[in-house]
Amino acid sequence: MHSILPLIEAKRDGHALGAADIAALIGAVVRGEVPDYQLAAWLMAVVLRGMDAAETAALTDAMAHSGVRLDLSRIAGPIVDKHSTGGVGDKTTLVVGPLAAATGLVVAKMSGRGLGHTGGTLDKLESIPGLTVDLDTERFIRHAEHVGLVIAGQSADLAPADRILYALRDVTGTVPSLPLIAASIMSKKLAAGARAIVLDVKVGKGAFMTDLAAARALAGTMVALGRAADPPRRVAALISAMDEPLGFAIGNALEVREAVQTLRGTGPDDLTALSLELAGLMHVAGGTYATVDEARPALLEAIRSGQALERLKRMVEAQGGDPRAIDDDGRLPRAAIVHAVPSERAGVLTTVDARALGDAAVALGAGRRVKGEAIDPAVGIVLGAKVGSAVSIGDTLAWVHAHSAAAAEAGAAAVRAAMRFGDGHGAAPPRPLVRETILP
Amino acid sequence: MHSILPLIEAKRDGHALGAADIAALIGAVVRGEVPDYQLAAWLMAVVLRGMDAAETAALTDAMAHSGVRLDLSRIAGPIVDKHSTGGVGDKTTLVVGPLAAATGLVVAKMSGRGLGHTGGTLDKLESIPGLTVDLDTERFIRHAEHVGLVIAGQSADLAPADRILYALRDVTGTVPSLPLIAASIMSKKLAAGARAIVLDVKVGKGAFMTDLAAARALAGTMVALGRAADPPRRVAALISAMDEPLGFAIGNALEVREAVQTLRGTGPDDLTALSLELAGLMHVAGGTYATVDEARPALLEAIRSGQALERLKRMVEAQGGDPRAIDDDGRLPRAAIVHAVPSERAGVLTTVDARALGDAAVALGAGRRVKGEAIDPAVGIVLGAKVGSAVSIGDTLAWVHAHSAAAAEAGAAAVRAAMRFGDGHGAAPPRPLVRETILP
Repeated sequence: MHSILPLIEAKRDGHALGAADIAALIGAVVRGEVPDYQLAAWLMAVVLRGMDAAETAALTDAMAHSGVRLDLSRIAGPIVDKHSTGGVGDKTTLVVGPLAAATGLVVAKMSGRGLGHTGGTLDKLESIPGLTVDLDTERFIRHAEHVGLVIAGQSADLAPADRILYALRDVTGTVPSLPLIAASIMSKKLAAGARAIVLDVKVGKGAFMTDLAAARALAGTMVALGRAADPPRRVAALISAMDEPLGFAIGNALEVREAVQTLRGTGPDDLTALSLELAGLMHVAGGTYATVDEARPALLEAIRSGQALERLKRMVEAQGGDPRAIDDDGRLPRAAIVHAVPSERAGVLTTVDARALGDAAVALGAGRRVKGEAIDPAVGIVLGAKVGSAVSIGDTLAWVHAHSAAAAEAGAAAVRAAMRFGDGHGAAPPRPLVRETILP
Repeated sequence: MHSILPLIEAKRDGHALGAADIAALIGAVVRGEVPDYQLAAWLMAVVLRGMDAAETAALTDAMAHSGVRLDLSRIAGPIVDKHSTGGVGDKTTLVVGPLAAATGLVVAKMSGRGLGHTGGTLDKLESIPGLTVDLDTERFIRHAEHVGLVIAGQSADLAPADRILYALRDVTGTVPSLPLIAASIMSKKLAAGARAIVLDVKVGKGAFMTDLAAARALAGTMVALGRAADPPRRVAALISAMDEPLGFAIGNALEVREAVQTLRGTGPDDLTALSLELAGLMHVAGGTYATVDEARPALLEAIRSGQALERLKRMVEAQGGDPRAIDDDGRLPRAAIVHAVPSERAGVLTTVDARALGDAAVALGAGRRVKGEAIDPAVGIVLGAKVGSAVSIGDTLAWVHAHSAAAAEAGAAAVRAAMRFGDGHGAAPPRPLVRETILP
């Protein structure tokens, strides 16, 4: 490409770009031919002028084709991918993956790391001693074949354009753009090879999308991108609430422990319900069941029989981890201090601010503010109460897992600041966890 | 400044930036602390979100203070600066400067080079053998004191932020922005020290501003910026038509020749009228005359008596040029070929497209497409007819001054394509050359 200046000017002036121009741009980006400053100007023009459906599809396609594409054709059985846009305490992949695999689906998933107030599945998995998420393509496919479940970091040669664009977006204020977000997620999903994909789009104070209209637009755009891809994908999506944290646990080893409890059938109601819904939707997308309700008995049986938990252990073992840590959580990293936060008030909890608690967990060391920062797998927050809980003075609002008294105190203060009480009268009825569903 | 990301995000989201933030940004830019990609994203956000009057004033002030500021206080007499936003065949500075200096004003002007279809005063002056526009501050001020007229290239340490921003805007599609254009022009004028400034904002097909509303907004913004500066400046502005070229000549030595003719009183009507208007307005801004009409007799006498032409010769000599080239245009560079373009049609000229002719002159070598390109001082186009001229078949539409037959042929084709004929009936009345005036 001679110069991208005409594409910057066209987008600046609000014109739609052609598919060939977008493909040429992405090709030049991957070859290192586009100066950062020109790409940054183009990205800001996209943020402020938007992209129509055809442009977004062309961008997604160009990014999906910017590197290698995984060929999963040698794997027998329905392969279903799953993606969450990210929330606080969102450990559903650790529940849904084993559940889906134990009921006949193949889950071969490339996942991400946490950034800012939201955690990442890879960080959570790595709190299991010995477990690696760095798998080459051959091992990734072999594990999918033999275990039916593999969760790994994204291969560097998959959708490299997304990595380049994201790194620049992160430092130029050009992250918040529906077409750029949708293209980023779906280009990786398309390159990763699954023919069926289930998306969990989070909405609320603790999510990237804070209002329903924006979440609906993102979900609809991503579903359309998958269906229009070559080959077309069966894509379903949930829009799920992320105003308070999902479950009780925030922090890597703490979330693994809660996922294991959930696979044992003794997990939090919201996490259990969302996991069953997502796993059911994966079966509908994969074609093994016609409806989520029809899939439910098999999913419940996989929990009751221990088969789902067994599948998690097999995955951990295959990826070099210690499967005994699943049965014995004493083998997971533990914080030096577990500080109970007693309530100084009585009442009904009306707000448990997911964003504030996510930030508090980052401050404890459970997450990272910038890419590449080390995290502490042991620390975090376990809630003692959720929205709607009746709390008495002295009841434990949360347990802060920390490595110093100062950090524990700061965490306790953050917990108190994140909660609001009411008298239980005249409160708005709780919002449903699953706000909307797009069937495949 | 720790990071400009918050300023990018604020402008992206349509918020106004505070003066302290803008000053910190410009300071960091000049110290080289802001990565190009962040500055490019910020500039595109400014292009698409705009800046209010207070932001534009803060940006102008920060840029004006980003380097040294000329101290002209030792010069006696009213110092008046002049700036044109650029047009095709716009050699008014070469006429207005000597006229103003010969009638008692001091003109100490830093000028620019041509880019794209518009020419630059420095390139025109350099077609005079020996003349230099590279003057240090000491020589610049000395010439202003002794000759009353000096025109030089902008000193590198004057408003360096503007040079950095402009270089990036040029390659990132972020040139067309009223606040950025106004701040760029006015920061240089404020740093250059004159207390009185006259602006010539061009409007039309051959100008940067193609519609009157945009030109009026730019003129109004720049006047306001000058009046609000510390110390306040007396600023006046014209909005003048740039649909057809100004005068007949386009090309560097060709324009010097036409400016000399105009100073002799035998120049084109439009160039003469605009030059008298601008010089008169400079007197009003400088406080030597109350109105343009009152200044006019002295200006006409400076032409009649030869004093204005004499002042140009003194400036040329002071800047190392050969003053004999003013009296004997055989001493100016000449093209090998002067190719007359006969009309193939009869009628009244309704359009002489300044933009197309400017581009044709660039193609001949009279201008540059990118900064730093060498230009040919001899080549260009001299029109034989203007809008409203009655043309018969065989009449000369223009003379193309070129160095090869092929270039002359291409120039001739461009001249024909740039002209439209009518039958002289029902044509729109010619627009006035000066569309609007803002008095100081």
